[in-house]
Amino acid sequence: MPTPTEPFPFAARLARVRARLSEAGADVFVVTDLNNIRYLTGFGGSAGILVVTAIAGHLLIDGRYEEIVREGQGSGVIAPINVIRVKKYDPTLIETIASGGWQRLAFEGDHTTVAQYGRWVHGLPGVTCTPVYDWVEAGRLTKDDRELAILRRAAVLLSGVACALNQWLAVGKSEREVAGDIDTALRRAGFEKPAFDTIVATGPNSAFPHARPTDRTIRNGDLVLLDFGGVLEGYCVDLTRMAGAGRVEANSHSVYRAVRLALDAATAAVRPGSLTTEVDHAARQVLEQHQLGSAFVHGTGHGLGLDVHEAPRVGPGDPSEAVRLESGMVVTIEPGAYVVGLGGVRLEDDVLVTAEGREVLTTAPLDLLIV
Amino acid sequence: MPTPTEPFPFAARLARVRARLSEAGADVFVVTDLNNIRYLTGFGGSAGILVVTAIAGHLLIDGRYEEIVREGQGSGVIAPINVIRVKKYDPTLIETIASGGWQRLAFEGDHTTVAQYGRWVHGLPGVTCTPVYDWVEAGRLTKDDRELAILRRAAVLLSGVACALNQWLAVGKSEREVAGDIDTALRRAGFEKPAFDTIVATGPNSAFPHARPTDRTIRNGDLVLLDFGGVLEGYCVDLTRMAGAGRVEANSHSVYRAVRLALDAATAAVRPGSLTTEVDHAARQVLEQHQLGSAFVHGTGHGLGLDVHEAPRVGPGDPSEAVRLESGMVVTIEPGAYVVGLGGVRLEDDVLVTAEGREVLTTAPLDLLIV
Repeated sequence: MPTPTEPFPFAARLARVRARLSEAGADVFVVTDLNNIRYLTGFGGSAGILVVTAIAGHLLIDGRYEEIVREGQGSGVIAPINVIRVKKYDPTLIETIASGGWQRLAFEGDHTTVAQYGRWVHGLPGVTCTPVYDWVEAGRLTKDDRELAILRRAAVLLSGVACALNQWLAVGKSEREVAGDIDTALRRAGFEKPAFDTIVATGPNSAFPHARPTDRTIRNGDLVLLDFGGVLEGYCVDLTRMAGAGRVEANSHSVYRAVRLALDAATAAVRPGSLTTEVDHAARQVLEQHQLGSAFVHGTGHGLGLDVHEAPRVGPGDPSEAVRLESGMVVTIEPGAYVVGLGGVRLEDDVLVTAEGREVLTTAPLDLLIV
Repeated sequence: MPTPTEPFPFAARLARVRARLSEAGADVFVVTDLNNIRYLTGFGGSAGILVVTAIAGHLLIDGRYEEIVREGQGSGVIAPINVIRVKKYDPTLIETIASGGWQRLAFEGDHTTVAQYGRWVHGLPGVTCTPVYDWVEAGRLTKDDRELAILRRAAVLLSGVACALNQWLAVGKSEREVAGDIDTALRRAGFEKPAFDTIVATGPNSAFPHARPTDRTIRNGDLVLLDFGGVLEGYCVDLTRMAGAGRVEANSHSVYRAVRLALDAATAAVRPGSLTTEVDHAARQVLEQHQLGSAFVHGTGHGLGLDVHEAPRVGPGDPSEAVRLESGMVVTIEPGAYVVGLGGVRLEDDVLVTAEGREVLTTAPLDLLIV
């Protein structure tokens, strides 16, 4: 039986962007971020530009994607908008804008380079080009039912993969081998691909939060940090679990316990109305109480969706720049502590903000897995 | 025995960029492209900004990377430049520039967003910020001995993986399963990761040049397009081979033969002094002679290096905008023909431009692999 899913709400998503267009008094909005284009249209290629006007959408794509878009529009997974085949993107965009007669162009300031902007201004005399921010991201911040259905399923799948970690961990196996086993399992589970480069960091390497797998093999006494994720129907989930090989030092156990308490505290702080800085503070405070404040060298988490790192950022900083959590947001909670020489500990869950508080989407046990 | 490699020529690379700085009359060059930063310094993290002045370099990184950079500088794989730890990138960059007293700032127009540029201009009154282009990429266009040693080794490794394709292909296996087998083999061979999402496209799906692996299984008579690559020490190689399942239609064989002739013609056109448009034309002409001109919906190739798609682009267009090939450039040659309903054929090799002509780095047989 095919998995029942919600229909693609492209019309509602485009309508939200069109409301911005009219508020801002612009004629046309040029979308250059590929995941924003995917969100609005379903088109997931590696190049493309979307032009949104008050009444229409024009998707500029090159020849490689023409058939895929035609089929996708036929089956309803790509929005029924006008498709324009390009040879070179900027000239065709300029031609499209000029022939539409639009005078007030809004574009994504966060996703347009200074070079591109220069070409547009040069090619469109008389057109005002204004950077705008978060027009699409504002909608992506809270997930709709279709997105939540995918993210829930993806988090359970990922937890299933995490539950098999003990099969791949053994003294003498290299970080690279374990990472390969995890990536194979992600594929077998049905993920399109890993959401990022799988991290397997053993012993002293675990003190580097973004370590890359090496040929170092697991030794007795090592902490092993395992951080991996998968992409399902375009959506990213992400999880970190810890293992220990044989007799792990008491010191390592202490760091593990402190991070676990920090995870619990930050997760409990997730609820509608909380500020992201408050959630971060909950984790940071626990680690400070354990004299590990300076060992926590990154933020507590990040939003999940089409991007593996998206808004809202859950980090320290000025509360006036923080995001107030709302039902439908999905974030990672991933405190960590890194002690050079000894190693590092990070634990990470994916958490949905609900009307009542929170729902932890990742279900795999958090215990230090002794192998 | 460890693989002997050339030392890292960071000093020479930084010197080339400094020559641009003095030519342009700028005090400071801000590098935001992560692979350009990696090329100049060896730092390969997922965030960072490099500031280059006439006499120094300042690498802005966040806490996640501090230890990795310290170790890398110790072992000589990261350039011995000043490291500045940041909490937020743009404020620390602004502070660094302001405290240096530099007045004329050059930045990468192709890799800086309009939003970032706006923040810098706002935060640095009195400083002129000028977009510049290709200051680092110009050096990356021709590979030095260290880069060539890695690319040669990577292409042989990738060819070794391709030689085992027959083990993973069989009627009844799904595209997704075969892609998983390839990715596992890439890891086992020693690649850090696939260079891009592995493409396995069977039967009608092969008509989509950028198809994603699906659950469709290989059927008798199918063409199977296999396009995959790996990253070794940061450098990307990329290869496409074709298989056929059982009795493949005469039509498919004809398309295969035409693409093979196009590959041969374009490869033969690679030599110092050729224009990239001439190489593209050599492939396109062959396909046109076989009435497949309109079925060739993409360019003939692209440069390879730290990015899997980098300069020079080998495509059609105005010869005045083409690149003249030079010894030391490495490009893919990958003509293809895509016929909706029937399927598609693409063949791809990695080719180094040498003083004498060319050296095909990928060694796997090009024949249609019948399984």
